[in-house]
Amino acid sequence: MEKLPVAELDFSKLDGLITVVTQASETGEVLMQAYANREALELTLSSGYAHYWSRSRRKLWKKGESSGNVQKINRILVDCDADALIYQVQQKGPACHTGAANCFFRELAKDKK
Amino acid sequence: MEKLPVAELDFSKLDGLITVVTQASETGEVLMQAYANREALELTLSSGYAHYWSRSRRKLWKKGESSGNVQKINRILVDCDADALIYQVQQKGPACHTGAANCFFRELAKDKK
Repeated sequence: MEKLPVAELDFSKLDGLITVVTQASETGEVLMQAYANREALELTLSSGYAHYWSRSRRKLWKKGESSGNVQKINRILVDCDADALIYQVQQKGPACHTGAANCFFRELAKDKK
Repeated sequence: MEKLPVAELDFSKLDGLITVVTQASETGEVLMQAYANREALELTLSSGYAHYWSRSRRKLWKKGESSGNVQKINRILVDCDADALIYQVQQKGPACHTGAANCFFRELAKDKK
């Protein structure tokens, strides 16, 4: 698989944040969607565990730092226009803060006419 | 699975755009990441084919409208805080405009020291 060095991500063009889709390596299940700034991404690469930037709390965040439900990184993929990543992970415990296995536990329904 | 009506998505809180992760229903493969505004989402639901809002071209966009590589919707999932969707689709042809099967064909590599 072709490699892209982190230095080639243009965070200035991304307003400092890249979109992250987090996926269970084993099952392909999409666990959550979040954001990373350069620091979160560098910590993810150096520690081997998923870090994000929380837009609501305006802080760096290691997934599972309080719950213990950490995400061990297997691989990080980058898309064609380098504005989205996939963290492929081994998830410990449930991924969602609600206790659900992943954050996508609802189906969107058409509005009733 | 619990249902959330479209009317409960708060597009004003989302600056008009919701993040969409597009996933192949059969394999779990993440195909691409894009955005939808309310109109794109309503067209997706009414037509059964994936529509998006292109931020770069500033226009509504039916995936595959020129290439023929359309995405037939099987199911749309919504996340815990209702700011991201998964379009689960049957992809016709390659998903990426580069001709790759999906947009995530590169692996992120650590910078050389």
